[in-house]
Amino acid sequence: MGLVVQKFGGTSVGDTDRIKNVALKVKAEVDAGSQVVVVVSAMSGVTNQLVKYCQEITSDYDVKEYDVVVSTGEQVTIGLLAMALQAIGVPARSWTGWQVPVVTDDAFSKARINQISVEGLRSCLDAGMVPVVAGFQGINEQGRITTLGRGGSDTSAVALAAVLKADRCDIYTDVDGVYTTDPRVVKNARKLDKVTYEEMLEMASLGAKVLQTRSVELAMKYSVNLRVVSSFEQNPVGTTICDEEDIVEKEGISGITCSHDEAKITLVGVQDKPGVSAAVFNAMAQANICIDMIVQTDSADGTHTDMTFTLPESELSKALAVLEKNKADIGYRSAISDSDCVKISLIGVGMRTHTGIAQRMFEALSEKGINVQTISTSEIKISVLIAGEYAELAVRALHSAFHLEDKG
Amino acid sequence: MGLVVQKFGGTSVGDTDRIKNVALKVKAEVDAGSQVVVVVSAMSGVTNQLVKYCQEITSDYDVKEYDVVVSTGEQVTIGLLAMALQAIGVPARSWTGWQVPVVTDDAFSKARINQISVEGLRSCLDAGMVPVVAGFQGINEQGRITTLGRGGSDTSAVALAAVLKADRCDIYTDVDGVYTTDPRVVKNARKLDKVTYEEMLEMASLGAKVLQTRSVELAMKYSVNLRVVSSFEQNPVGTTICDEEDIVEKEGISGITCSHDEAKITLVGVQDKPGVSAAVFNAMAQANICIDMIVQTDSADGTHTDMTFTLPESELSKALAVLEKNKADIGYRSAISDSDCVKISLIGVGMRTHTGIAQRMFEALSEKGINVQTISTSEIKISVLIAGEYAELAVRALHSAFHLEDKG
Repeated sequence: MGLVVQKFGGTSVGDTDRIKNVALKVKAEVDAGSQVVVVVSAMSGVTNQLVKYCQEITSDYDVKEYDVVVSTGEQVTIGLLAMALQAIGVPARSWTGWQVPVVTDDAFSKARINQISVEGLRSCLDAGMVPVVAGFQGINEQGRITTLGRGGSDTSAVALAAVLKADRCDIYTDVDGVYTTDPRVVKNARKLDKVTYEEMLEMASLGAKVLQTRSVELAMKYSVNLRVVSSFEQNPVGTTICDEEDIVEKEGISGITCSHDEAKITLVGVQDKPGVSAAVFNAMAQANICIDMIVQTDSADGTHTDMTFTLPESELSKALAVLEKNKADIGYRSAISDSDCVKISLIGVGMRTHTGIAQRMFEALSEKGINVQTISTSEIKISVLIAGEYAELAVRALHSAFHLEDKG
Repeated sequence: MGLVVQKFGGTSVGDTDRIKNVALKVKAEVDAGSQVVVVVSAMSGVTNQLVKYCQEITSDYDVKEYDVVVSTGEQVTIGLLAMALQAIGVPARSWTGWQVPVVTDDAFSKARINQISVEGLRSCLDAGMVPVVAGFQGINEQGRITTLGRGGSDTSAVALAAVLKADRCDIYTDVDGVYTTDPRVVKNARKLDKVTYEEMLEMASLGAKVLQTRSVELAMKYSVNLRVVSSFEQNPVGTTICDEEDIVEKEGISGITCSHDEAKITLVGVQDKPGVSAAVFNAMAQANICIDMIVQTDSADGTHTDMTFTLPESELSKALAVLEKNKADIGYRSAISDSDCVKISLIGVGMRTHTGIAQRMFEALSEKGINVQTISTSEIKISVLIAGEYAELAVRALHSAFHLEDKG
């Protein structure tokens, strides 16, 4: 008998009618002969309301208590879904994070799972019941409630699938799979049947909001057979995320992402000597700011140069303050910032073997008159920073240049 | 250093501003030199919403899962209040029922507390922190979440005060104490400074909604120094509930209650022979229906008689169904029911020593033309059943006849 972990996100359990609908999907899997473990998020809107309460109390709240408050959202859903399953004849019981227990580290509000005990869930399964587990939450070694950060229910589901050695982990969501790019931008974007862990990881990191990045990392590490499917379709196919060798027909390029949370800082008149970059990036690291792309132009006068780097737009004001504070130490004339930029990325394991992809990318952008400001690459990705106004134009041009469209 | 348990009900923590206000009250007690343990309810309205969700899923829900859902209300409040305390410089941490732990029996949705561990709370207090404990909730021996029934946070607070041997247990609520009767009915109803456990127990059982009956039982059993005070007053005096010997000036009558949740069933033509009452009340007991007053008239013909009893109005239709089902077994001609009746009760430990109270009560009612249908008495209480339309008139007449008014 196979074991399947099914995870349902916030919109899938958005009200009591939708929770009853989820119960039917679980029942279908049970009726098909599988053992099923269900992981759920909070009803949509609930977590936001709880976060708002915390912010109303104080802007500088204790994250330990934040976790106590926001973890209640998932607890409501597990109780309601267990009831809904029982009501249609499927024996079920709810499990909070501390009941399983899902043991995490002490990083409240963004904790990482250290260990999951499977004894309780196994005996629940062996008794013919469906365990309904609260995603997003755990406890630390001291028995205090922790949460895994936004989107953490995906990670809960994949981690459970890993420790239970599940045959499949299905992530039910409000989209029907992973697309070559955002279908709201490119009408004939194509749903991918399969995508590799590596590609999905890049896509998740680069702005595709289908899965939490950490859940993909975990799935890759433990070879969890992961699938993204729609809650609102009958017999959905979705997208399977798997090892490269499980994909016969590899795509050159699998997807194009566009991240809007980007900003650029240029330090003008930086001394052209060793140790200056280190001073900049140490200061950033200490302030917990992630630097993404870095470009340093050649020194024109042999003593001074300009240095450009990108970072999340949400960190821009903090970063400028850090630079100002360390100005004497770093040594630069002025800092220019620009938050009106986007990062467009081409992703595909095929890049390892196909050549000429970068060239075709730059040609396609150039044909539309789009100026590339900064470039970064990895083995399976090329990212460029461009002016924000060209975002959709660039995505459409690249989608077409690489023939990613749905042939319908 | 004294130890005080403070309990704040739903309206006292109804929104984030009120929670901040509660934090100030806790701080005042801490600043006065006390160790403080706080117990809180769910924000007002929250529990009703959670119950509504359960009812939307199914009318016949699993009470185990109901407890998982509704216990989240208090968990939100403890986190928010702990944050609010920290924000004004009072070290604090939240405690769920399972973290304390508050161990209960298995009667989900109306569990009784078996045991409370004080180690965790003590070390929290010893570290100079205020423990903020979720009322209403606990866990059973198997580690599943239980709740104590509506108003159960009062019971949580009194039980904590008992095991911690607190010097005082203050129940903060939206009224400023216990009154001789409902001030909405009798304008010059008088707030009582002190009332005995026994009187409070009768008042709580008979319709005064200030405290949950079980919390008063517990307070009496463990001699907890209990006080009901207003959340919305500065330096409230409230009402102290204590042993009879702690009250110097005992009142003849302390209070008058009026319960509207009453119904009356008369079985006409019951056989006048032994065992018939037993058949009736066994059937009721098996259906979990509480019978209150019982009256059997003398047999006129020597073979048949009428039997009248009262019960909660909410149980009337169920009771009639039980009677119909057992009609042959019990043997009666017909059943007449009346739900348009109220129970008026006079309560006072002074009844033990004062005579003529019943006589004065019946005179006062008779003067207003109010017919007494049924009577029941205990050592410190006289209850009468009257037609519903006379409810307020009767309460006002008795309040005046026994000179309970506020002379102020």
